[in-house]
Amino acid sequence: MRIARFSVREGSPAAGSVSFGVVEGDPARPESLVVHALAGHPFGQPQPTGESYRFQDVRLLSPMLPNKIVAVGRNYAAHAAELGNAVPDVPLTFFKPSTSVIGPTESIAYPPFSSDVQPEAELAVVIGRMCREVPLERVPEVILGYTCANDVTARDVQQREGQWARAKGFDTACPLGPWIETDLDPSDLAITCTVNGELRQAGRTSEMVRSVAELIVHISEAMTLLPGDVVLTGTPAGVGPIQVGDEVAVSIEGIGTLANKVVKRG
Amino acid sequence: MRIARFSVREGSPAAGSVSFGVVEGDPARPESLVVHALAGHPFGQPQPTGESYRFQDVRLLSPMLPNKIVAVGRNYAAHAAELGNAVPDVPLTFFKPSTSVIGPTESIAYPPFSSDVQPEAELAVVIGRMCREVPLERVPEVILGYTCANDVTARDVQQREGQWARAKGFDTACPLGPWIETDLDPSDLAITCTVNGELRQAGRTSEMVRSVAELIVHISEAMTLLPGDVVLTGTPAGVGPIQVGDEVAVSIEGIGTLANKVVKRG
Repeated sequence: MRIARFSVREGSPAAGSVSFGVVEGDPARPESLVVHALAGHPFGQPQPTGESYRFQDVRLLSPMLPNKIVAVGRNYAAHAAELGNAVPDVPLTFFKPSTSVIGPTESIAYPPFSSDVQPEAELAVVIGRMCREVPLERVPEVILGYTCANDVTARDVQQREGQWARAKGFDTACPLGPWIETDLDPSDLAITCTVNGELRQAGRTSEMVRSVAELIVHISEAMTLLPGDVVLTGTPAGVGPIQVGDEVAVSIEGIGTLANKVVKRG
Repeated sequence: MRIARFSVREGSPAAGSVSFGVVEGDPARPESLVVHALAGHPFGQPQPTGESYRFQDVRLLSPMLPNKIVAVGRNYAAHAAELGNAVPDVPLTFFKPSTSVIGPTESIAYPPFSSDVQPEAELAVVIGRMCREVPLERVPEVILGYTCANDVTARDVQQREGQWARAKGFDTACPLGPWIETDLDPSDLAITCTVNGELRQAGRTSEMVRSVAELIVHISEAMTLLPGDVVLTGTPAGVGPIQVGDEVAVSIEGIGTLANKVVKRG
């Protein structure tokens, strides 16, 4: 099942209303897609309202408004190596704030305090149940599904400042989308990042140093995860700068493509 | 003005209800304190409901439920030195998650993955208005007030892991309280931490490497701050371990005392 969050475009009696919804159809033919609205949230047993919309009549929003985003650094060995870093003995965990989240139809605003902004394609895990100290074998129970994320990073700021709140937490530094795929085995998916159609990053989730399940165990050992919280699982090799005017696209096999333009901060 | 968040204790018709309120009276004589409930939130022009409670009939909660907490490391030179660190050229910024927040009547739960938990007494700034790219001279406009914070840290985990999400983000790692003092000059306040009444940390906010205003400028350069967001401003020298059974108290001149017991995680 593909769960999106959307607003209804102008021209409909429901224009402007924001809902979760289930997307049906063939993503390769957007004109075939239909969105069935859900009542309330998508956790537990989602209830359809009976309202449906053609895909062209809705605007996709970030599929979740997470309370927190916990991210993991250097979880693909080739990416750690390309920046001159070792794979850490213990997963390297940091937060991105809710104010950094944007959806698939919004733009990355180049932050004025950096001159080296870089995208990082990542598999995002969306938590479905409040949980803490999750045992490895029960991790699947706490996951709602998966989406594409871009862990946008001001590389120069990251290298200058010892902790990464500003480098990875600026407004628009966390594009998420296009939707949450709930039926997916995350263990071996192709993941790519393109800039203006040119391939930059290409990897497979099977190259992760720690698996999705191991990361959830490690993070939830320390802190409660809430429904809607998002865990980013690291990026494969191939990172490099982007510029105002570029279009960055993160694609993950079995999910889809999250594309965002890069604009000057307004 | 002192703004608290509280629930009404058993025995009142309003038992269990949660509100913000204005605390009046002399904190040195708790029996003199009265809490005047506010309608809704304390931002903008707070409106009293007309309901008042004796202090002994309410239970103080964390004075804010922040969307995000942005913290600053090594902002007192003597504390940086005691851990063998230099004062960074650029302020070192990190996040603590909302799930780490507890109030003045809750307990710090010792996390099982650490054997060296340490309190850090800090002045907390509570944001009152949505803002970004705040100029130095306009910082006072975006501040609602100040409270005491304890930036509880698993020191062994912090030293083992390159980024501090687990070391400083575990559940209960961010006690806040007892209330928000809105009329306060933060530039030269005594700040202490005691453990079981024994003085551990003692400093003055005038020893901060970067002032409150400079920190807000620096953080808001990157990210939007929301009403209720909290900025922690660093801790003075004197950090050391605490144990289950201890009582930790953070006191700041002009605000009051935030005391929390340390318990085994349940």
